[in-house]
Amino acid sequence: MRRIYPSRMSIVDQSPPLAAITVIDLGRVLSAPFATSVLASLGARVIKVERPEIGDDSRAFGPHLNGKSLYFTSVNCDKESIALDLKIAQDRKIFEALLDDADVLVENFSPHVMEQLGYGWDQLHARWPRLIYGAISGFGKTGPLSPQPSYDIIAQALSGMMSLTGHPNGPPVRVGASIGDLVAGLYMALGVTSAIHKRTRTGEGCLIDVAMLDCQIAFLEAAVTTFTATKVVPAARGTRHPSIAPFQAFLCADRWIVIAAGNDSLFALLCQVISRPDLATNPHFLTNAKRIEMLDELDRELTLVLVTRRAHEWIDRLTEVGIPCSTIQSIAEMVAMPQVVAREMIVPVNDPALGTTHVPGDPIKMSSVTPRTSRGPAPDLDQNRPEILDELQKRKSKMKA
Amino acid sequence: MRRIYPSRMSIVDQSPPLAAITVIDLGRVLSAPFATSVLASLGARVIKVERPEIGDDSRAFGPHLNGKSLYFTSVNCDKESIALDLKIAQDRKIFEALLDDADVLVENFSPHVMEQLGYGWDQLHARWPRLIYGAISGFGKTGPLSPQPSYDIIAQALSGMMSLTGHPNGPPVRVGASIGDLVAGLYMALGVTSAIHKRTRTGEGCLIDVAMLDCQIAFLEAAVTTFTATKVVPAARGTRHPSIAPFQAFLCADRWIVIAAGNDSLFALLCQVISRPDLATNPHFLTNAKRIEMLDELDRELTLVLVTRRAHEWIDRLTEVGIPCSTIQSIAEMVAMPQVVAREMIVPVNDPALGTTHVPGDPIKMSSVTPRTSRGPAPDLDQNRPEILDELQKRKSKMKA
Repeated sequence: MRRIYPSRMSIVDQSPPLAAITVIDLGRVLSAPFATSVLASLGARVIKVERPEIGDDSRAFGPHLNGKSLYFTSVNCDKESIALDLKIAQDRKIFEALLDDADVLVENFSPHVMEQLGYGWDQLHARWPRLIYGAISGFGKTGPLSPQPSYDIIAQALSGMMSLTGHPNGPPVRVGASIGDLVAGLYMALGVTSAIHKRTRTGEGCLIDVAMLDCQIAFLEAAVTTFTATKVVPAARGTRHPSIAPFQAFLCADRWIVIAAGNDSLFALLCQVISRPDLATNPHFLTNAKRIEMLDELDRELTLVLVTRRAHEWIDRLTEVGIPCSTIQSIAEMVAMPQVVAREMIVPVNDPALGTTHVPGDPIKMSSVTPRTSRGPAPDLDQNRPEILDELQKRKSKMKA
Repeated sequence: MRRIYPSRMSIVDQSPPLAAITVIDLGRVLSAPFATSVLASLGARVIKVERPEIGDDSRAFGPHLNGKSLYFTSVNCDKESIALDLKIAQDRKIFEALLDDADVLVENFSPHVMEQLGYGWDQLHARWPRLIYGAISGFGKTGPLSPQPSYDIIAQALSGMMSLTGHPNGPPVRVGASIGDLVAGLYMALGVTSAIHKRTRTGEGCLIDVAMLDCQIAFLEAAVTTFTATKVVPAARGTRHPSIAPFQAFLCADRWIVIAAGNDSLFALLCQVISRPDLATNPHFLTNAKRIEMLDELDRELTLVLVTRRAHEWIDRLTEVGIPCSTIQSIAEMVAMPQVVAREMIVPVNDPALGTTHVPGDPIKMSSVTPRTSRGPAPDLDQNRPEILDELQKRKSKMKA
């Protein structure tokens, strides 16, 4: 058994935390499928229930390789798939048999779809009192905008997240990954594990209502508190941190680097490394508060020196004295980092259609869980129907016996 | 008892999921304090152990109001504080007495600090086998970069997240909130609740090792899978989604809006609303894949029409037919939204120094938990020493008796 954390203590039970948990995933595209992907990483069994013929919409998202969507693969590894039409009696029976044995149901339909299907919270809870039901939507199950559809960019735009991202007075910038969905998915996974813990105590499941907009608001750092207290509207600052300086990108002779001199002693060190010790004792730049105030001036002074040498020269010199810094890497550079390889953060997936492809590894490394060195492929639509039906059949026979 | 989810079923036990859990928080600034803030939202008791005199570094982050940092307030509500010097015998005794009664310890020091203090995982686990120990760092406890310091912008830059954010060939852009820290904090909270669930089964705690870099990699959406399979390096796309079009910002007569026409029928609807039905049948734009390929041309065609009217006119027309769209809101506009108010996403904090201030609400809304309408203030440094010491004293006397 491989263990990446050397420890004198041996933890005997190396099963994943959610080993005995079964999740039914009605999710499409990203927020709910990401939530269940995280639950699968924690050891849950995830069964995707997809609509016949088309399945999860993201199966159509490019690029495709040998007919299989790389986008779909990236969030659906290690899941099973069965295609069911929840408007047809026979398929509803199968769906309900799945719920008989499930711990968790997750979906990201518009808020009223489940009620219309006869699977609203009241119906679910009456029949399956232990079931934990997680619903992700753009605006949640309450409030005037509840019925409105939403997507990632809407959550980023409405929340103010986009207003903080980009250059002052520049054109708007969307965060390059769909954090509107991803953050909501992660909060849902957290809600589900918390609800599982509470269920151990009470025996009862619950509804978890997560809105993409709410989750973006929870991710605005100090912006809400600062604005409500001071009435100063925070604005986009390019690469600059709102409360720490210098903590931003600088252009070197060949490319940009970032430097995070998070406190006065790191700033003094930085001034030494760039042979401008005078800046550290300049009354304009003496404290973090002053550096924030005089940042345009400080930026100019630092850039004048930094632009004279290549990025890697500066990175070497700054790293040597312990100043956090780095180049701004492409995905290709990141994937090749020995650190990323050592952490097993790019793990192989052996997929019948794609051959060996790769997805991000698990960022939660636990001493009590044997880390996985690969992930199972994302399922083809309806791929696991025979085994799933067989299993339901066997359970039925067993209960009759 | 207020309940925001109308339900015929009544859940009797309305205690928060982590009601009986005590967390010791050695965190500074953001990642670990955010993790424990989320755990506090889920009902855990959180005791901040801070270094004497200075405390959590973010107490010094501006802006300040009546001497209290708004930044610090935004991530430390509902916690208690005691100042301890972990290098002094007497204070170590208090710290260890706290651990006697704790379920979880979270910190974000550099990876070797806890070992140096004599509180490495092996020591902790030997003495407190049920303790769950969560450590957040820039690079984690393994790999060649493990000892190096890091900050949010380093994680954003190294992971490739910044390479996906901003305008093509434009200057770099940092995501406006510190998602390097926040995502790591949220993954840690998830690791902790999962480990609590596993402990119910096994009786044993574990080490949870979370790296900011790893968490950013897990948040790159399809970029890792797409790059490793196709070797095409993904680049920043302004406001455009990498796999869906049109799904981006457009300039209207007065300001920018975002439109997310996530599928062919929404695109056809959009073309109708802007009186350009010809675009929907134009073979260049017939499918999502074609629209992605011809996006510069499509962008031009759509902008020519959209720029002729004001943002709110378009929002009204688009919303009426169900096309997800919105203005790009400032924090001030977001805070005033009736939806945000209805969801209680801006909650009051009654703080002795700040008066009534506000922080984001809980994005995990559970039918089984009575929602809170306010939060307790962030503690002053060492504020809760008397009660905490008194409590430890009482426990000691009780054990002797």
